[in-house]
Amino acid sequence: MKRSESLSEQVAALADGSQTASFLAERSLERAKKNAGLNAFAALDERTVLAQAEAATQRRSSGKTLSPIDGVPIAVKDNYLTKDYPTTACSNAAPLEPSGTDATLVANLRAAGAVIFAKTNMHEWAYGATNDTSTIGVTRNPHNLDHITGGSSGGSGAAVAAGIVAAALGSDTGGSVRIPSSACGIYGFKPSYGRASRNGVLPLSWSLDAPGPMTAALEDIGHLLPFFLGADPKDNSTFNAAPFGQISFEGKPKLLSLTGKGLERSDEVDAAIRSALSTLDAAITEAQLANVTGYFAAWEAILHCEATAYHNALLAKNPEGFTSVTRAHLEAGRRLTGVEFLEAQKLRTHLLKVMLNELPDWDALVLPTLPVPAPPHGQDKQKFGGRSVTTQDSMTWFCWIGNLAGLPCLTIPVGKSSKGLPIGMMLMGKPGCDEKLLAIARNIDQSINGGEA
Amino acid sequence: MKRSESLSEQVAALADGSQTASFLAERSLERAKKNAGLNAFAALDERTVLAQAEAATQRRSSGKTLSPIDGVPIAVKDNYLTKDYPTTACSNAAPLEPSGTDATLVANLRAAGAVIFAKTNMHEWAYGATNDTSTIGVTRNPHNLDHITGGSSGGSGAAVAAGIVAAALGSDTGGSVRIPSSACGIYGFKPSYGRASRNGVLPLSWSLDAPGPMTAALEDIGHLLPFFLGADPKDNSTFNAAPFGQISFEGKPKLLSLTGKGLERSDEVDAAIRSALSTLDAAITEAQLANVTGYFAAWEAILHCEATAYHNALLAKNPEGFTSVTRAHLEAGRRLTGVEFLEAQKLRTHLLKVMLNELPDWDALVLPTLPVPAPPHGQDKQKFGGRSVTTQDSMTWFCWIGNLAGLPCLTIPVGKSSKGLPIGMMLMGKPGCDEKLLAIARNIDQSINGGEA
Repeated sequence: MKRSESLSEQVAALADGSQTASFLAERSLERAKKNAGLNAFAALDERTVLAQAEAATQRRSSGKTLSPIDGVPIAVKDNYLTKDYPTTACSNAAPLEPSGTDATLVANLRAAGAVIFAKTNMHEWAYGATNDTSTIGVTRNPHNLDHITGGSSGGSGAAVAAGIVAAALGSDTGGSVRIPSSACGIYGFKPSYGRASRNGVLPLSWSLDAPGPMTAALEDIGHLLPFFLGADPKDNSTFNAAPFGQISFEGKPKLLSLTGKGLERSDEVDAAIRSALSTLDAAITEAQLANVTGYFAAWEAILHCEATAYHNALLAKNPEGFTSVTRAHLEAGRRLTGVEFLEAQKLRTHLLKVMLNELPDWDALVLPTLPVPAPPHGQDKQKFGGRSVTTQDSMTWFCWIGNLAGLPCLTIPVGKSSKGLPIGMMLMGKPGCDEKLLAIARNIDQSINGGEA
Repeated sequence: MKRSESLSEQVAALADGSQTASFLAERSLERAKKNAGLNAFAALDERTVLAQAEAATQRRSSGKTLSPIDGVPIAVKDNYLTKDYPTTACSNAAPLEPSGTDATLVANLRAAGAVIFAKTNMHEWAYGATNDTSTIGVTRNPHNLDHITGGSSGGSGAAVAAGIVAAALGSDTGGSVRIPSSACGIYGFKPSYGRASRNGVLPLSWSLDAPGPMTAALEDIGHLLPFFLGADPKDNSTFNAAPFGQISFEGKPKLLSLTGKGLERSDEVDAAIRSALSTLDAAITEAQLANVTGYFAAWEAILHCEATAYHNALLAKNPEGFTSVTRAHLEAGRRLTGVEFLEAQKLRTHLLKVMLNELPDWDALVLPTLPVPAPPHGQDKQKFGGRSVTTQDSMTWFCWIGNLAGLPCLTIPVGKSSKGLPIGMMLMGKPGCDEKLLAIARNIDQSINGGEA
């Protein structure tokens, strides 16, 4: 697969008049048709898309452009409320008609002139990381249709990787932005908990969830950031931090590569990460993170308790609306005790304390995004690093750490496996320091992928 | 019983030289001996007291007085860490030797020159409201030794009511400051959650706990407030609010008297409250609070989950250290589910929303503090308002509401029962508005008890 056009390139082409919003929309629609086999979309209406694009084209030709991204097509995961598309979370449990309201982030992008292109396929209710459980069926990886995209934002990953759109929105509770981004060879960013509004994004686990962009290039994230980060009165967990923008990072970043029991990875992924790191002008050290298994159990306890607390009334009312897999997860959530939930919260605080106070000082933590490249459809187990784990657990293997600790996390592509499947590297920053993480990543991405610095 | 000397009177006598700190200490020691039958103290060392008092007397005579309360004896519940007394929470599970550190509030009072007089008897670990479960035995009510003090700060209530000290510290998770204050005929104040530091106060349920003063007169609370309220870097739930001090309240306060299913009270208590209210220059209305039973269950779920989460490791290590009653409570806490805990948190938010947005506008909510006067020792059930409830539940009957919603709450004495036992009235303010509540209460107390306005 050749590299897709980036959102930044689209922004430039719109600005210099070499492309119009209508052209971009038509081309995206055409590519969506060509790539129907990916099963990336839960809702896509040609007239809705063309009408938005036409309005954007008109605005630009009359000098009333709303923002640099005015006219850029952006796809949205099917758990974001949208006023022109239904929202189902790819479940039959409680499908919502077009609601007349947009999630805050969708509203922000729409106000900036973005063309809300489609709703993307996802793992039912975001409660899984393989995207093989969805009312509309599995998504397929553009790099190899026999392989999964990972999830739960699998449709967004496939749509961007196939070049249908240059950017899509995902949500991330244990990696759901980063997993399909890594598996599909694109960039995925999970902001710090509280930096981006969750208003209008159907929750999986409210204290772990973060919405995030998935893009063809790293600089695309910078174009979206002004519409992404910031306090929202409709989400009382959000806060304002340092102003966003082109914050630069001078000097060698201190990268801390995490290892330890529970952080194993396949030899192929390990080699790709080591090779990528070897090209960098950075101070790279390794550190063991202890008790990964304990922290993972804490993440799972919080996830299961909150997910079941959120869905409990619906589960009682319409159990058959959920797939049996999701229903089983939700029912299992009822068995966890309150003490287990609170002990998990203690471990969450402890993990952050270890990261900030006990590990050697760092600017970014480094891990592979996934321990293995995207597995084939239907494969239940993954073997790596002397372990055999479920495909589900292999997808969240490293990513949940960023959710439990509330860190900003980014995945960037660093190469391909022997079978041509993408491999991603994850960088994690300190809580609230999203801009610094992206600034560090810009330098790293340039070294590895030759992106613009 | 005649009214005890107040802390305010002691402050005045110290200031005009008519009494010395040493005199107050000696008199308190003498009264403690005379009232040994109350079983109010868990630790009291004559030399420790006299040494502190002597230092205070010296300071004042050499013009180096630390604050208006320099030299005033104050007793402290046995769950506050103190550097000169052991801390046991009246349990054998994990008694602590004098720790070399004071709880923040004890440190504040000590720095102001207060004489830390004694540690007071309490319900084991504060996990009960009768004070009949304690390693050192039950406390007895100064108004009638055959009756309970209520708890869990029963020793503090008895010590103040008997005039041994004019002020004592308690802690309040479901009424533990207000219950013994009401039952013993004194004033008890539970600050808003987050206004007073919990640092160094052994927790019962960290999201419900509040430390609070128990005093002979209402104005005594004002003398203690500067050492009580304010953000503490050692307790990250604390915040700074309006400056404390003599905030006055002009005009008629809007008092909202709460009624409804679950808020029944005995005829005698109801009559005493109505009689007290009838003397006030206030706009008094009644409103029904719906779903009291549901909110109560939410308070209980949070209490049990947090208490067991806090004690779980100790319970596994030293189960025999707890009395069988407390152990049974803690073991029951293990059976609540995480979903029940989270649903309780939703109800907590809902209660506050109802109070602030759905009830008629109010300056203070009014309830009896207890539905019955202090019961006799050994009585398992209380009958009132057509109900028969456990003595434990009758003690927390109204008080838990203030903890679940995080409100500032005050109990003031309003009369006596036919058997000569005190009856208290509870006022509750809006979260953070502690000073306004106390200003309103000053006017009310003057009408009812003739206190200074």
